[in-house]
Amino acid sequence: MEQKNKLRIIPLGGLGEIGKNMTVFEYGEDIVILDCGLAFPDDDMLGIDLVIPDMTYVLENREKVRAVVLTHGHEDHIGSLSYLLREINVPIYGTRLALGLVETRLKENRLENYHLMPIEAGDEIKAGIFDIGFIQGSHSIPDACGIYLKTPVGTIVHTGDFKIDPTPVDGKRIDIHKFAQLGKAGVLALLADSTNAEREGHTGSELEVSNTLDQEFSIARGRIIMATFASNVSRLQQAANIACKYGRKIVVCGRSMVNVVNISMDLGYLTIPEGVLIEEDLMHNYEDKQILILTTGSQGEPMAGLSRMANRNHRRITITPGDTILVAATPIPGNARSVGKTIDNLLRLGAHVVYEKESGIHVSGHASRDELQLMLNLVRPKFFLPVHGEYRMLKKHGELAEKLGIPKENILLGENGSVFEFTEDTGCINGKVKVGNIFVDGLGVGDVGNIVIRDRQQLSQDGVLIVVVTLDKESKLVKSGPDLVSRGFVYVRDSEALMHGAQLKIKNVLHNCEVNHISSWTTIKVQIREALNQYLIEKTGRRPMILPIIMEA
Amino acid sequence: MEQKNKLRIIPLGGLGEIGKNMTVFEYGEDIVILDCGLAFPDDDMLGIDLVIPDMTYVLENREKVRAVVLTHGHEDHIGSLSYLLREINVPIYGTRLALGLVETRLKENRLENYHLMPIEAGDEIKAGIFDIGFIQGSHSIPDACGIYLKTPVGTIVHTGDFKIDPTPVDGKRIDIHKFAQLGKAGVLALLADSTNAEREGHTGSELEVSNTLDQEFSIARGRIIMATFASNVSRLQQAANIACKYGRKIVVCGRSMVNVVNISMDLGYLTIPEGVLIEEDLMHNYEDKQILILTTGSQGEPMAGLSRMANRNHRRITITPGDTILVAATPIPGNARSVGKTIDNLLRLGAHVVYEKESGIHVSGHASRDELQLMLNLVRPKFFLPVHGEYRMLKKHGELAEKLGIPKENILLGENGSVFEFTEDTGCINGKVKVGNIFVDGLGVGDVGNIVIRDRQQLSQDGVLIVVVTLDKESKLVKSGPDLVSRGFVYVRDSEALMHGAQLKIKNVLHNCEVNHISSWTTIKVQIREALNQYLIEKTGRRPMILPIIMEA
Repeated sequence: MEQKNKLRIIPLGGLGEIGKNMTVFEYGEDIVILDCGLAFPDDDMLGIDLVIPDMTYVLENREKVRAVVLTHGHEDHIGSLSYLLREINVPIYGTRLALGLVETRLKENRLENYHLMPIEAGDEIKAGIFDIGFIQGSHSIPDACGIYLKTPVGTIVHTGDFKIDPTPVDGKRIDIHKFAQLGKAGVLALLADSTNAEREGHTGSELEVSNTLDQEFSIARGRIIMATFASNVSRLQQAANIACKYGRKIVVCGRSMVNVVNISMDLGYLTIPEGVLIEEDLMHNYEDKQILILTTGSQGEPMAGLSRMANRNHRRITITPGDTILVAATPIPGNARSVGKTIDNLLRLGAHVVYEKESGIHVSGHASRDELQLMLNLVRPKFFLPVHGEYRMLKKHGELAEKLGIPKENILLGENGSVFEFTEDTGCINGKVKVGNIFVDGLGVGDVGNIVIRDRQQLSQDGVLIVVVTLDKESKLVKSGPDLVSRGFVYVRDSEALMHGAQLKIKNVLHNCEVNHISSWTTIKVQIREALNQYLIEKTGRRPMILPIIMEA
Repeated sequence: MEQKNKLRIIPLGGLGEIGKNMTVFEYGEDIVILDCGLAFPDDDMLGIDLVIPDMTYVLENREKVRAVVLTHGHEDHIGSLSYLLREINVPIYGTRLALGLVETRLKENRLENYHLMPIEAGDEIKAGIFDIGFIQGSHSIPDACGIYLKTPVGTIVHTGDFKIDPTPVDGKRIDIHKFAQLGKAGVLALLADSTNAEREGHTGSELEVSNTLDQEFSIARGRIIMATFASNVSRLQQAANIACKYGRKIVVCGRSMVNVVNISMDLGYLTIPEGVLIEEDLMHNYEDKQILILTTGSQGEPMAGLSRMANRNHRRITITPGDTILVAATPIPGNARSVGKTIDNLLRLGAHVVYEKESGIHVSGHASRDELQLMLNLVRPKFFLPVHGEYRMLKKHGELAEKLGIPKENILLGENGSVFEFTEDTGCINGKVKVGNIFVDGLGVGDVGNIVIRDRQQLSQDGVLIVVVTLDKESKLVKSGPDLVSRGFVYVRDSEALMHGAQLKIKNVLHNCEVNHISSWTTIKVQIREALNQYLIEKTGRRPMILPIIMEA
């Protein structure tokens, strides 16, 4: 079969979106999966907790899957693993921190039978026909890796999430020599992070945050409370170092922050001297100026530490005018309002708040255009696939590659499900596999689909109006009702006249049905719905969901 | 009474938020209202169309109200007038454009008896004890004004929404001489726009957009489609001028865009030569390169022109790869995602899209820090009230004033409802009046409150499960049911087992009630709710709204 001679790269998530990164590499009888992440729901995915990729393609080819390879430990790269592993047991390769974070998740999901295979940057593994190498990267979590795959048709390089940080906090510089060496030897295709492809220049080094932190620590006279992404271990390390310098103890707040601190201290990624870390309930033994609190909530998430403090419903921590609060993160689009509200409320409580508009409290973990150019020039691939970004970012990244001389026809701008097909000399998009969003809601995976979401949207806009009528079992005449119950529609106490009018409309419908010997429940329900809809629009301008229920007794 | 000797300034909206600006100026028996705007709902105000200020204070003092004075014609300054005018008939002063926009709204709301009093910048009017003057401003709508009020305790200056544009498109420069003259004569208090108080430097001139537009027009070979705020008449004028230069006809799309173009042409604010404006259905008579389409939808609003084009459901306009699309606006926080999706979809259709990340396609209408400093230095007020902004912006603006030498105790940082009280020498916040958000939903004003919103929130998250039971009228025993109906909870077809289990739980409850002679409907309902809640959380991890309905027949 001809297909066996071709390498197929199939993104199941992460193209045209930031989130749920998952890419299939397939050659003949072998598949390797790169990353297996989740996405957080859009505003219109009401009630949804998480979104995972539709893995149909992988499950239909389950016997081919040789390994999952992880670039790093962020949720959008590892968060769907527990769903995949319920279906296929396959070895998982990643650095120790990534695997540490994976393991916590797997245990939370009560998975027991899994094979985590720790690797280090520089290692090479074999998975089916593929030789896979890990390249030291730099990103907003330690030990992020780029990946290369040696395949029968040539070498493929995937940057993973990266920036080119000249002064990383852990001292581990991105291995540009390896990228250069691969480029020199010849790379068939490069897949590269497009998150900041719209941003000119060079992304700041994580170390730049240090200066801002040090300055704030040097002037603060009260407590310091710093909110950041829990996974940004380098930033936690910087904060810890500076806390030690200024003689502050560290209190860790928020479940994910506690998790990450524990895992990364266990694995040696985070070093805090003995006695510096203290429990929340021992804080009162120290003066305010001896305290640093590390907390979750940098995105304004309503249940997280910082938001609780801002809303004055945190169990133990009450914000006072002496507090300095460092919001060391940039709001993800969609979170800007809630972050703004959190900051406003902290300011109202009199705290000194340092946030995004100030310089130097946060730097991105993703490469800007200058770095993207450097990566393209180092690897100088034959084919280029912009990945990890919304469509306009992929597009900009593609245009950048074209400017650098990669022929337009070799820049492959695909979407989730696109089948990128390569021989030694050719590359193109050929076909599409099934992809999509699988919703996780509570314990349910995939049981909430578009119909349920559409119902939630209607309910959220104008509420629900329930009409119950009991018919006599024998005579089929109305025996009781119509009774009306509404929720989320109008304030019940103020709407007696409205409800009375609605009742008359329904009685009218029921009477007409009786007179005309209409006994089909479906027809009766349709007529009730139509009459009520018209009446309510006229009276209120709203369209609640109308649910007629007919009982027989 | 002592109070009569004091000037009271009471913001009913616009402090701690961007939106629904409305401020009361009160002295003795006289009240003047400055602006009367609406706000757009936050994400958590489900189903709400508009938000207007709680006007209780004004209505309780209705006999004192002498005039409404408008700074400019934006919705957040005029959009609540139709609600106020239903209650009090009072003359409304504003420039012709503002009043033109007001009148459209009043007619839409079927108000007939109103008194619109057109003024021009430079005019002074008398309203009760107040002498009120209008100062030429510059903003993202023509004829925006600053206001001064001469009161018995001194002069108050309100900037309105402003920036200091050295080269406004309509040639009307902000009257800095007047601000200077007032400052020189002595100003008791300044109220100033804080929207961009976090932004360093100087906001760009509207004219800068011209260069970008000209360049895009000079290279475009197909249609040009430009989306912007309809009210930004200066930008429409620039686009029209450049369209004429390049020989393009203009098509106007979207209800609000058509409205504003008509009003501002009628009133002489927008000049388009005869024959340049054409109807949408005559477009086909021209080549693509002869067409400019002005459209709504720059904020990614789902029903607006540009979004419809992006989603391929616009009546007449189908995007093709030859199109150039100019998104001449910045997403308001909260709209970033929908604007991003709109741009992505336009790019997917092959169009060339110029948007915010590009330079020069949009400038803000609000002063940045350098301009704010200049205004403070010109007016050099005794007291300073930062207004028009979320709390952190007011705070930054206050800090800026402090840096310029205004004593900290003279910087009055209030919130909606704060009563700012002034004598000739003193100023302070003294008390608070009732304020709040009144929700407009369909035809209802204020009939949707927190209970309804909370219900909508619950419904939106996990849907609703309705339980109907019919009891025998005499025996009070179960005669029919329990019947279960759910919406937005689980996909009904896949959940037979779940529903069957739920039914058993309810039967169990009903049986227990019968055995224990519990006949209180309230008690039965509570027990059904509790049993189901527990069962559903265990089985699904979700908490739908559970509505038990008991009938007797």
